[in-house]
Amino acid sequence: MAKERLYLYDTTLRDGAQTQGVDFSLEDKALMAGALDALGVDYVEAGYPGANPTDTEYFETGEALPNAKRAAFGMTKRSGRSLSNDTGFQALLQANADCVCLVGKAWDFHVDVALGISQEENLQGIRESIAAVVDSGKEALFDAEHFFDGFKANKAYALACIQAAYEAGARWVVLCDTNGGTLPGEIEEIVAEVVTHIPGDRVGIHAHDDTGHGVANSLAAVRAGARQIQGTLNGLGERCGNADLTSIIPTLMLKQPYADRFETGLTGEHLRNLTHTSRVLDELLNRAPNRHAPYVGESAFAHKGGIHVSAVQKDPRTYEHVTPEAVGNQRRLLVSNQGGRSNILAELERIGFDTPKDDPRVAGLLEEVKTKEAKGYAYEAADASFELLARRHLGNVPHFFDVESFRVMVERRHNALGELVTVSEATVKVRVDDEVIASVGEGTGPVHALDNALRKDLGRYQSLIEDLKLVDYKVRILTGGTDAVTRVLIESRDGKGRRWFTVGVSPNIVDASFEALLDSINYKLLRDGATVH
Amino acid sequence: MAKERLYLYDTTLRDGAQTQGVDFSLEDKALMAGALDALGVDYVEAGYPGANPTDTEYFETGEALPNAKRAAFGMTKRSGRSLSNDTGFQALLQANADCVCLVGKAWDFHVDVALGISQEENLQGIRESIAAVVDSGKEALFDAEHFFDGFKANKAYALACIQAAYEAGARWVVLCDTNGGTLPGEIEEIVAEVVTHIPGDRVGIHAHDDTGHGVANSLAAVRAGARQIQGTLNGLGERCGNADLTSIIPTLMLKQPYADRFETGLTGEHLRNLTHTSRVLDELLNRAPNRHAPYVGESAFAHKGGIHVSAVQKDPRTYEHVTPEAVGNQRRLLVSNQGGRSNILAELERIGFDTPKDDPRVAGLLEEVKTKEAKGYAYEAADASFELLARRHLGNVPHFFDVESFRVMVERRHNALGELVTVSEATVKVRVDDEVIASVGEGTGPVHALDNALRKDLGRYQSLIEDLKLVDYKVRILTGGTDAVTRVLIESRDGKGRRWFTVGVSPNIVDASFEALLDSINYKLLRDGATVH
Repeated sequence: MAKERLYLYDTTLRDGAQTQGVDFSLEDKALMAGALDALGVDYVEAGYPGANPTDTEYFETGEALPNAKRAAFGMTKRSGRSLSNDTGFQALLQANADCVCLVGKAWDFHVDVALGISQEENLQGIRESIAAVVDSGKEALFDAEHFFDGFKANKAYALACIQAAYEAGARWVVLCDTNGGTLPGEIEEIVAEVVTHIPGDRVGIHAHDDTGHGVANSLAAVRAGARQIQGTLNGLGERCGNADLTSIIPTLMLKQPYADRFETGLTGEHLRNLTHTSRVLDELLNRAPNRHAPYVGESAFAHKGGIHVSAVQKDPRTYEHVTPEAVGNQRRLLVSNQGGRSNILAELERIGFDTPKDDPRVAGLLEEVKTKEAKGYAYEAADASFELLARRHLGNVPHFFDVESFRVMVERRHNALGELVTVSEATVKVRVDDEVIASVGEGTGPVHALDNALRKDLGRYQSLIEDLKLVDYKVRILTGGTDAVTRVLIESRDGKGRRWFTVGVSPNIVDASFEALLDSINYKLLRDGATVH
Repeated sequence: MAKERLYLYDTTLRDGAQTQGVDFSLEDKALMAGALDALGVDYVEAGYPGANPTDTEYFETGEALPNAKRAAFGMTKRSGRSLSNDTGFQALLQANADCVCLVGKAWDFHVDVALGISQEENLQGIRESIAAVVDSGKEALFDAEHFFDGFKANKAYALACIQAAYEAGARWVVLCDTNGGTLPGEIEEIVAEVVTHIPGDRVGIHAHDDTGHGVANSLAAVRAGARQIQGTLNGLGERCGNADLTSIIPTLMLKQPYADRFETGLTGEHLRNLTHTSRVLDELLNRAPNRHAPYVGESAFAHKGGIHVSAVQKDPRTYEHVTPEAVGNQRRLLVSNQGGRSNILAELERIGFDTPKDDPRVAGLLEEVKTKEAKGYAYEAADASFELLARRHLGNVPHFFDVESFRVMVERRHNALGELVTVSEATVKVRVDDEVIASVGEGTGPVHALDNALRKDLGRYQSLIEDLKLVDYKVRILTGGTDAVTRVLIESRDGKGRRWFTVGVSPNIVDASFEALLDSINYKLLRDGATVH
């Protein structure tokens, strides 16, 4: 039997941006839209043009995505105003997007109280707004706000609202559980009734996690006939978050009764990218990934306790309902270093070492990785630092140069004009061969000054690092207080288009940054085949 | 109609202790058992005597709880050994506990492969073990491991296992979804069949969150007839965690169809203690509470979007499915560039300003908030910085002191012993009234040194800031490169138990940190009513 198609509509960049503490920049949006497209979702709702400058600019300048449709979110036209006089609505029609998702009322109480217009006027507004989107050549979606509350209060009117949108040409009517309070049984019952009025392949579900049922509600709607799921990566979203696509997607693709009945836009290959995509979002938001997240969490396939571990080794199905590899995650056996060893061996192979499994240096390297990770290093995110560590253990990393000393000063004072200014200056003494080179650099902050000083003159290596560029710099505080242990991750790029990541850890942010900077330079010299005298 | 009784079985201190990185001390266990008892759960499973010294000691010395039953966890007797020769089992019988929960096999595959005994021998072991617990005068529970997988593989045998326990006198047979892979539809179907064999008021459910359905699975079992729910506070537990009682309890008590049909051991008064109890656990584990947790999270009732905020103020039901007070939480209206005037007004009211809606200073404040947020400030996460900003606009913030200048130095050099060391030192010049005070501080890094210098001597304000403590420090890089714009968030606490958050933004991390530090001190002085001469 042919599988039915389920559509995935990601709103990480719009509804997810409502999360407390989350603020996507224009670059963040572009990067994340690309990652979501690569993951294989059908729609990427990237923002609400007109709501804030970033979203407005995104829909002015952003480019189409290779696969997914880009959606702009907005409101149905304002009441008491004609379409052409509603500048917000006109901006939506002009948005550089493939579709427009319009939120509108479906609860009579809100029409009466919040809008203060007649029920018919609201229906008319929905019809006109949807029709205008369709006329503009864009795909139209209608997001029925408070649909479930509205349905319980006045079923006929709630249905009339979505029917109006459907008849006006909306590709999808999306049933929104706006305050997140509806439970799965009710969702299933109501959606089953909706699809007797509007075909299920035109009906979507938009759930929130306020009772911990965001995932269950989305799947309940699918069982009842809805064929579009709206959600966010990592369950990002206001209050308790939106329905978590990171949990929903693997359940749909790997588990019954869904896997046999439905197909999504993702292939198995896409699915193996899920853990990575989830981590990219957390990196972008500079927050620690949720270890315990279903499927993609670092602990999702971690086994503690001797019985579990030996049982898992005998037969993984005992404690794993799916294979970690299917979602791009991995098993972690916390008491045995077997898992660690095979990770290390796999990494070494990737770098180009063909190390025998029982090479004692592998055990030594594993020990060092464990010790350093306990101190806060994170080699999963720092491939170049791992490679340097491994090569130092197994082969030899040439000793290109030594740093004899450095000094960084940050000073805030009144300048000659009486203005308060802050200046940062660094001095570095480097020994290359037998020559000691002292350089001074300035910068916008202590790390920038240090970076400038260090890379000003590396003697005979200088020409090799001229094309080295630091493109990202991330700081994570691992413990509390201003004397906290700090982890710095640096992303570097060079003229050959190579990218690599290095890590440094220290209670002193300058030290941690310096360590990551040194790793980056050493890695670049190594890759470019620099030699020592 | 009389309500049916649902029993809550908390296993935070046993299954929750399987969580990666979680280790309860004896004191922790006693404290948490007390908190759980005060919350009103029926059972507190506090550990596995014999599995580790802490658990063993807990069941030797621990005292009975005022209300809840204390449960000890363990295994059914070992195969090929008599009850009296199984020391582990005997220790369980001796445990200072009201009940014993015995885990045993219910999946034929495991009996054959893992135990390597006959199916009948396994049944016999279950019978004898449960009977021995009953004979010892303790309440017996049977935890049927892998019950759902076993049921799907060999229904008759899985049922025979729980039947054996039930007939031997188990108060409860608990159906365990050990690897967390069963979905709600299947749970409901299987439990419905189980309760045709064993009365539902003797059947419990033990679910895990591997697909994000821990809560939904527990409630599905209740709908199908089970009357005991096992879970943990905050969803603590191995891999993705156990079913989260913190989400389940309020849904049972506040929402339909549960609230009208069932009662638990908790009163409304108990329920208002839920948020507090959840935080106590996080405090004990020294981890940041999950802001987005259903019901109890700091963001669970936080509203960001401008439309949302004005709607919530008109009618909270619009975006709140239950009242935050019912679970001891509170509403939060966030200030951010997503929101508008109504957020600002609500915040001002919270701070204590009764500002008319059309006060032009409100528009000015909103403009400044937007401008600063465009530069990278994030006021929704920095309540104290927002309050200072607002007060500067609307009223007056006393000008307590000025910082004339500062200088921070970080130096790496070889010390007298030839070791490479990094030292950080800061000098700050502060003007209080007409006195200029210069202080020097050292620290593990530049910000720590600056903090120490700044707070060393604030003249006549010094006594007011003695109890000021910086408890968290977060850094976010807003743009790429080491010359990136940096946002620093600082969390402070004082001796009166107050907590506040401040923010600083600058391309220079030292400047950004300094700004947040100054805001923190100014806020503290303001709250403590410091005056200027």
